[in-house]
Amino acid sequence: MRSVYEDDSLSLHTDAYQVNMVETYWHDSMHNRKAVFELFFRKLPFGNGYGVFAGLERVIEYMKEFRFTESDITYLRDAFGYEEEFLDYLKNITFTGSIRSMREGELVFGNEPILQVESTLAEAQLIETALLNIVNYQTLIATKASRIKQVIGSQKALEFGTRRAQEMDAAIWGTRAAFIAGFDSTSNIRAGKKFGIPVSGTHAHSMIQVYKDDYIAMTKYAESCVRRENKVFIPLVDTYDVLRSGVPAAIQVAKEFKGEIDFKGIRLDGGDMAYLSKKTREMLDQAGFDSTQIVASSDLDEETILSLKAQGAKIDVWGIGTKLITAFDQPALGAVYKIVAIEDENGQMQDTIKISSNPEKVTTPGMKNVYRIVNMQNDKSEGDYIALKDEDPQKEERLKMFHPTHTFISKFVTDFEARELLTDIFVNGELVYENPDIFTIQTFVSENINLLWEEYRRTLNPEEYPVDLSQKCWDNKMTIIQDIKKKVKGKLGY
Amino acid sequence: MRSVYEDDSLSLHTDAYQVNMVETYWHDSMHNRKAVFELFFRKLPFGNGYGVFAGLERVIEYMKEFRFTESDITYLRDAFGYEEEFLDYLKNITFTGSIRSMREGELVFGNEPILQVESTLAEAQLIETALLNIVNYQTLIATKASRIKQVIGSQKALEFGTRRAQEMDAAIWGTRAAFIAGFDSTSNIRAGKKFGIPVSGTHAHSMIQVYKDDYIAMTKYAESCVRRENKVFIPLVDTYDVLRSGVPAAIQVAKEFKGEIDFKGIRLDGGDMAYLSKKTREMLDQAGFDSTQIVASSDLDEETILSLKAQGAKIDVWGIGTKLITAFDQPALGAVYKIVAIEDENGQMQDTIKISSNPEKVTTPGMKNVYRIVNMQNDKSEGDYIALKDEDPQKEERLKMFHPTHTFISKFVTDFEARELLTDIFVNGELVYENPDIFTIQTFVSENINLLWEEYRRTLNPEEYPVDLSQKCWDNKMTIIQDIKKKVKGKLGY
Repeated sequence: MRSVYEDDSLSLHTDAYQVNMVETYWHDSMHNRKAVFELFFRKLPFGNGYGVFAGLERVIEYMKEFRFTESDITYLRDAFGYEEEFLDYLKNITFTGSIRSMREGELVFGNEPILQVESTLAEAQLIETALLNIVNYQTLIATKASRIKQVIGSQKALEFGTRRAQEMDAAIWGTRAAFIAGFDSTSNIRAGKKFGIPVSGTHAHSMIQVYKDDYIAMTKYAESCVRRENKVFIPLVDTYDVLRSGVPAAIQVAKEFKGEIDFKGIRLDGGDMAYLSKKTREMLDQAGFDSTQIVASSDLDEETILSLKAQGAKIDVWGIGTKLITAFDQPALGAVYKIVAIEDENGQMQDTIKISSNPEKVTTPGMKNVYRIVNMQNDKSEGDYIALKDEDPQKEERLKMFHPTHTFISKFVTDFEARELLTDIFVNGELVYENPDIFTIQTFVSENINLLWEEYRRTLNPEEYPVDLSQKCWDNKMTIIQDIKKKVKGKLGY
Repeated sequence: MRSVYEDDSLSLHTDAYQVNMVETYWHDSMHNRKAVFELFFRKLPFGNGYGVFAGLERVIEYMKEFRFTESDITYLRDAFGYEEEFLDYLKNITFTGSIRSMREGELVFGNEPILQVESTLAEAQLIETALLNIVNYQTLIATKASRIKQVIGSQKALEFGTRRAQEMDAAIWGTRAAFIAGFDSTSNIRAGKKFGIPVSGTHAHSMIQVYKDDYIAMTKYAESCVRRENKVFIPLVDTYDVLRSGVPAAIQVAKEFKGEIDFKGIRLDGGDMAYLSKKTREMLDQAGFDSTQIVASSDLDEETILSLKAQGAKIDVWGIGTKLITAFDQPALGAVYKIVAIEDENGQMQDTIKISSNPEKVTTPGMKNVYRIVNMQNDKSEGDYIALKDEDPQKEERLKMFHPTHTFISKFVTDFEARELLTDIFVNGELVYENPDIFTIQTFVSENINLLWEEYRRTLNPEEYPVDLSQKCWDNKMTIIQDIKKKVKGKLGY
């Protein structure tokens, strides 16, 4: 059954409550009040010591197209029965506000604004859902990929996960996130075309099955390789029997085509990888193919890779699918988008808070800046510093940093550079930022990781990286909490 | 950075090795050989007793558009350096084969073909990746949703997960899968427009924060409700303090607007749901709002719902987000797509197998049919029966069913109906099937579940539903395994 509406614009990719709220604001003439929302997550995923921000590319794509189509308006009329005047208002909405965001590939930690929207209340609400949907997933995968890359080190990492990804968008945006976090290639051709990611691939088990014989199939495959510019021959050896059929056939074919093909590797896709890779290595070496690499794939992640390395597995290249593309061990990042300031009836911005019985869920009011405090003596980061908009930590000679929960933990930093992490992306509706190409972003990620001491980089039990509030930001939060507490008390017994 | 290629056709949403293999086949004049591939998973997800197949709608959409665009061909030339003749061949490829599939909403179990492609070898390979990507995710979510729905029972289930979904496609196709498996609505407006799913939503914490006061914000919200056709008023009560501010304010506003709004529910989005829901129920009842429902959301899944129910929580409506839309506890279904038969040089179909040291990974050769064996005396299913294409189990008076691994476990069934589960979708390239609307599919799912005895439906430790091979299918598999074993032995010592 096809939709009765002709297009499928992404502007309706939002939660119904957003439009309901906008309707309330519109009727109450609140819709054009200036508001500030900040997007952040509370806790790093996978127990990792840092996150890698990704998603800005698609946020920009989405924002540029943000406008309800005729059929969107028709649907809103049909489904919700909104008044015509309100629908007219929606029809003309475009994004006229400003977005500041971390750059893609920036390292990000809990409770710091990744992205900040300063716009009319209505616009800020309507874009919330899509922004979260995009940033949550892409940041999750970039972080997972970076974690896996920490374990792989300088060896190659190939992304293989499309068939197990959570639908098509996840496959292509996920592999892009993996690439910027340090992966070397994707198997998805569309992602290669769309983003310029290097694409790699050899053949599947089915090809061996078609010819019913490793040797015959690999001969045909070698004939293809001869015709190709790069001559690369990487047969898959585990269709029938790795050591008795696959590897011997590969070696035989490689000998017969010597000089005509580049026997760059063989691929193992299952079984006992530690044992099989060692035996395969021996067989390759004995046949004189000691520079032929072993590519392994089969539900790999940072843990299995670490274990295989500890077992001395002879694996040179890692193909990673399911566990990366779905972030299998924690498939959602819980980033939220919270209002931190709203214009009052006199045109003044007022800071807002959300209280919770769970202290971690209490928001930090006010429009903020985030700084990475880099120690100029060793070029390592001392932590991140969140200050209110009008503060300038660079002016401090001795910057006091204290833990946002355990405030007695504090330190003073001198000889530092306070690097502002949020950059203008849209200013008053205009796109003012050009996202770099994916190779530049990949380099940016690795430079950022170099700013971290090793204790924050390890995959198991990393130290907690400091993300501290300025004194002013902390005092502001405490004052507002006290105000609300008094108010709530006063309201008892409606 | 934008792609240099103008369009983003889904036909390139495939793994590079598919095109590489097709190139090999094309050079070897094998590309037009008839082949049969079957799509199946090995193991049910979440320890559930059954799966719910979803994804056919998008498979059809994708197949209808399957054709490489000009810019696809340009990219393939640029990236892989294929010869012009081969690129010409690719440019003209459309799907000319046949697809048989289970209907959306069919119950599905391990190791049975969900979808079967009979086409040229080349076409079948090129579409593999996209088919797996679609079916894996949508079937996973439909299964998860059905599992959650088993626990919720006749109460309402709302899908809320867009912001935590793995990118945009997952949000909308995931919520569709949840709906067909029994959910009542989605929060995603685009999914409402695209698929006709009922959309629901109230307001967010931010609305309370904007007005800085529960009572004022809820009054404004009530004024909106008055104007709406359905008058529904469901305030969110946990922005500042549920029992001291949120609920009292909601009750006060509902009293003031009595007759003008429908105080259908209140929404709790965090905190101790068991305690808060009971206290809220008391407060609502005391105020005379005993038909006002309590809607709960906050990282719910089948386990937390079961626990809340066991604690006597007073929850009437369940909003489910992250844990459903990402299938949090198992975010990937491992469906695979395996070749089971290939045409030989004489035009005869030959069955093929993939062997593995892991016995579960050994495929079952030959083109097959799957039947649900329904006992006509009680209208319950006795199990599924996989037979070769030319068999007809309905002709048997006493059907022998035996366990495909532990073959000594067997039973005879009489007075049964063997319902064929695979339906023609495409025949020789023509779409011959019309997918029903989502409401029809939803009904189909619940009828299918009624065919199952209770022991297969429970969420914890269900009995294993029998999926049995016909004797002929089993004998065929054993013969082929023996042949391969002999061959591999013979190949020793290349």
